[in-house]
Amino acid sequence: MAKFQVIILGCGSATPSARHQPSCQVVDFRDKLFMIDCGEGAQSQFRRQGLKFSRLSHIFISHLHGDHLFGLPGLLSTMSLHEVGGKVTIHIFREGAELLKSWMDFFNRDSSFEIVYDIIEPGERRVVYEDSSLTVETFPLYHRTACTGYIFREKPKLRHLKGDMVRFHNVPVSRYQSIKEGADYEKEDGTVVPNAALTTEADPSCSYAYCSDTLYSQRVANDIKGVDTVYHEATYDSSLAAQAKDRGHSTAAQAADVAKKAGAKQLIIGHFSKRYVNGEKILLDEACGVFGNSVVLANEGLRVNLE
Amino acid sequence: MAKFQVIILGCGSATPSARHQPSCQVVDFRDKLFMIDCGEGAQSQFRRQGLKFSRLSHIFISHLHGDHLFGLPGLLSTMSLHEVGGKVTIHIFREGAELLKSWMDFFNRDSSFEIVYDIIEPGERRVVYEDSSLTVETFPLYHRTACTGYIFREKPKLRHLKGDMVRFHNVPVSRYQSIKEGADYEKEDGTVVPNAALTTEADPSCSYAYCSDTLYSQRVANDIKGVDTVYHEATYDSSLAAQAKDRGHSTAAQAADVAKKAGAKQLIIGHFSKRYVNGEKILLDEACGVFGNSVVLANEGLRVNLE
Repeated sequence: MAKFQVIILGCGSATPSARHQPSCQVVDFRDKLFMIDCGEGAQSQFRRQGLKFSRLSHIFISHLHGDHLFGLPGLLSTMSLHEVGGKVTIHIFREGAELLKSWMDFFNRDSSFEIVYDIIEPGERRVVYEDSSLTVETFPLYHRTACTGYIFREKPKLRHLKGDMVRFHNVPVSRYQSIKEGADYEKEDGTVVPNAALTTEADPSCSYAYCSDTLYSQRVANDIKGVDTVYHEATYDSSLAAQAKDRGHSTAAQAADVAKKAGAKQLIIGHFSKRYVNGEKILLDEACGVFGNSVVLANEGLRVNLE
Repeated sequence: MAKFQVIILGCGSATPSARHQPSCQVVDFRDKLFMIDCGEGAQSQFRRQGLKFSRLSHIFISHLHGDHLFGLPGLLSTMSLHEVGGKVTIHIFREGAELLKSWMDFFNRDSSFEIVYDIIEPGERRVVYEDSSLTVETFPLYHRTACTGYIFREKPKLRHLKGDMVRFHNVPVSRYQSIKEGADYEKEDGTVVPNAALTTEADPSCSYAYCSDTLYSQRVANDIKGVDTVYHEATYDSSLAAQAKDRGHSTAAQAADVAKKAGAKQLIIGHFSKRYVNGEKILLDEACGVFGNSVVLANEGLRVNLE
C-alpha cells in the first residue's frame, strides 16, 4: 500500500520543554512531505527523523502564535543552504505571511527556492492543495486568535483488475486505466462486459484532520465528520476544563468526544500542557474512556499510519 | 572569588546539526547573565543549563545572519510566559532591531517586560553596557556583513584590608570603602598611614573577548590586546584557508594566531563547520600548535572559568 502516515515532530504547548517540542508534524503521503505548523526547532526534529528537505514543498500554519511558527525562518534558511529548488508554499494568515516575508527577504534573500505565500482568510473553508491523489482543505478552529484546521483526503483510488478475467476477455492494455476508473468494457462485437466482472473494489481512501489549537466545539466535529484519523489538541485533563475554556483549549475528554462524534476510527492527542511532567497517561486514559481504544498519545518521533 | 564564566550554548556554524547548535553563549558574571548571539534553540539550551530567565537582561547580537539570532523570538516569548519583569536590552544593528521589533510587537504584544533596542552602528567602538563592576564594549569584526565583537572587562577590584593593621590604627568602619579604593588614612592627630600599610593588592580583573564571525585580521588582535580569554571562531582547518577567506571565516591556526598576538592567556575556539562530523580534534591540534596549550574546544554545555 502507498505510504500515508503522520510523523509527530512536536506535541508540546507554548514553549519547548524537557519533554516536548512546540507544535510541528509532517504528513508523509507517497513520498511528498507536508508540514503542519512549525514551532522552534522543527528543522532539527525534521532531520532527526531522516526526512529530506527536497521532499517538502508545502507548509500549513494553523495560527499566528509563536509556538506554531517560530521554526519557519530557520527551516527555510536551512533548506536554502541545502539548495532545495523549485517552490515552497506557506499556507498562512495574511499578517503571518507579511511578517515572515519581511524576515525572509532580509535573512534569506539569496534563497535557492521561491517562497509562495497562500493567504488563508479567517473562517475560510477552501481546498488549499490538490494533486492527482490528494486534497488538503481548511476549516475553522476556535482559539484565542484566528485558527484553521486542515483535512488531508486521499482521492478515490483505482479499482483492482481481475487478471484472469482481463485475459479471458482479451482486454487491451490501452483500456486498463479507464476500467480501473470504473468503466465497462465494450468488445468489438458490441458485447458489454460490466466493470464488476473485471475489477474488485478499490482500496479505501483515507483521511486525516488536524485540530490544534481549539476550544471544544461541536462545529469541529461536524466539519471533520467521516474523517478516519483525527489529531486533536488535548492540552488539559478534565479537572482543568475551566482553564481550557478560558485559554481556548480542550481537555482530553473533549478531544475524544469530538473525534467520536465525527465518527473517526483513530484519535491522536497532543499539544500537552507542561504540567504533566511525569507523562500524559491521565490524558490518554481520559480520552480512551470517551472514545474507545484507538487513542494514540503523540510523542516526538512517533509515526502513525493513516491507511 | 566572584563568578565570571562563559557557558557555551551553541558553537556550530550555519545550521543546527547532530553535533552542534547554532551560535549562542552566556557570560555569567556575579549572577547576572549576558547572552551573546541567540541561534535557534537558544532558549532550550539555556534552560538545559539550569539558567534562570530572570537573571538575563542583556543580549548582544554580533551580526544579522539567521544562525546568530533566529532564537530571539522564541526566547523573548518564553521569557514573557515566565513573567520576567523589568527590561531586556537587545544590542543589535539597526535592521535587525527593526525586523525583531516587528515580530515582537505582533507575537509578544503582551510582553511582561520592556524590550529596549540598543542600536549598534557598523564599525562602532563603544561601551554598550556598564555597571559598578563590569563594562561591555564593541569592536569591529570582518565578515560578509557588518559584524561586531564584544569585550567584557571587569572593572578594577577593591584592595583587601589587612585586618590586624586596620585594628592597630583604629580605622573607623566608615573609612573602609575609601581605603579599599586606594586612599591613605589620616588620623585625627594628622599622622598619615599610607594605603600600602593597610591593604594588600586587589584580585586581578579579568576580561573576555568574543570574536565570531570574522576573517583572520591583525586588526582584531590589536582591538583585543591584553584580553585574558578570547573566544575566536575557527570554522575550518588550514587546508581550507581559501574557503575560510572566501566566506569571511577563519581557520583554527588563524584564530590561535590572533589570540597569541593579543597576548591572551586562554583561547576558546568554536563556530565549527559541519564537515567535522567525527569531532574537531584537528582544529584543536592546529590551534594548540600555534597558541600553546591553553586552547579549549567549545561544546554545548561547556563552562569556562574567566577568572
